[in-house]
Amino acid sequence: MAMTTGHTVKAFDDDLGELRALVSEMGGRAEAAVNDAMEALVRRDLELAARVVEQDRRIDEIELEIERRVIRLIALRAPMADDLREVLAALKISGVVERMADYAKNIAKRVPVLAEARGLEPISILPAMARAVSDMVRATFDAFAARDAEAAVAVCESDRIVDDFYNSLFRTLLTYMLENPHNITPSTHLLFIGKNLERIGDHSTNVAEMVYFAATGHQMAERPKGEDVLMQRDTPR
Amino acid sequence: MAMTTGHTVKAFDDDLGELRALVSEMGGRAEAAVNDAMEALVRRDLELAARVVEQDRRIDEIELEIERRVIRLIALRAPMADDLREVLAALKISGVVERMADYAKNIAKRVPVLAEARGLEPISILPAMARAVSDMVRATFDAFAARDAEAAVAVCESDRIVDDFYNSLFRTLLTYMLENPHNITPSTHLLFIGKNLERIGDHSTNVAEMVYFAATGHQMAERPKGEDVLMQRDTPR
Repeated sequence: MAMTTGHTVKAFDDDLGELRALVSEMGGRAEAAVNDAMEALVRRDLELAARVVEQDRRIDEIELEIERRVIRLIALRAPMADDLREVLAALKISGVVERMADYAKNIAKRVPVLAEARGLEPISILPAMARAVSDMVRATFDAFAARDAEAAVAVCESDRIVDDFYNSLFRTLLTYMLENPHNITPSTHLLFIGKNLERIGDHSTNVAEMVYFAATGHQMAERPKGEDVLMQRDTPR
Repeated sequence: MAMTTGHTVKAFDDDLGELRALVSEMGGRAEAAVNDAMEALVRRDLELAARVVEQDRRIDEIELEIERRVIRLIALRAPMADDLREVLAALKISGVVERMADYAKNIAKRVPVLAEARGLEPISILPAMARAVSDMVRATFDAFAARDAEAAVAVCESDRIVDDFYNSLFRTLLTYMLENPHNITPSTHLLFIGKNLERIGDHSTNVAEMVYFAATGHQMAERPKGEDVLMQRDTPR
């Protein structure tokens, strides 16, 4: 087997493969956290909500494991140029996934309070929004695993669907709050949950942009970013 | 001059120094963004708000510049163990600062809508909260520059002050929304602004933990994390 500067190409590829598998695992866990948090919310299932919070530790552990492996990989294999870029991309993506999972955890933490609230009909938008977001997360990590630039572009485009859901949720919640002051506290929770989902979508977009860059060597063309409906002047004041 | 494995220790130290200076610059800009966004809000100064949004691009550019330098530094200087760890910490911290600045930008983006709203008295809590947060950001990057573990611990402790401000803001806004439905939309903006400040405080804490780890080689002891008041059962429903 040919040795080049003290390491074999195969050893590097194996290490990188393991690193990427860990990032994919984190992505899968973040997707599951979104789905489980939403299911816990809809079914008022406090045990499932507690499990989402607890499982987040494992995601944090994988992030630390990835960091350790990146340091060892760079020290042992001394990757150059493109290889190094890919290793650092994995490190960076793991940081983003950790935050995505954190937002899902935050949703789960709100379940116990909301489980006691009555008349939360705007909740019907949230499962559909959560599905759109978890589809987006899955598509992102499929694109990551396949190093697929086109799939990464599709992820970024689907972020608009999530933004539309958020805007629709905001308008619905506003109506609820105006109708009855008792709806204000639960509606505030639901608004934060919607905002968390929207941010998970944003972070998916960031990861997809990194996947695109890693696959093509170019930045993805700037998309016109959808604005939070709250920023628009026509919302009721 | 002695050459070791193709690079001098001094060349590495110079590169690392420049890298750290860029991270400090990002931190200073994030702190300024918080202050300016709040000043724009209080004075209803749309120009200043627009400038905060525009200046955020420069922060994004510095982040990319840091990434480029990290890749070059690793490729050219092949740092080992502790040195490599410090380089990767700078990369990681730059990613966190980018998000801190993003939250400040988000505050600035809400200024035009809030500039038209009347009777926003809870706003009086926000400047004090913003000051606490920008003090925290400054202390974080002072600790980073000085590699000061004790100062990093102090940063983490001061996060409670920010959490207390947020909880007090939330209660005040809730009262406002209950009093008059016309307050609901502006109050929602103010709540998001408070949440943004609170997250900037959280991110400062994360950076301070990384500073502590880099300085001591140990993880900072777990702090009992202050909970969002919204998670408490005794809030009015």
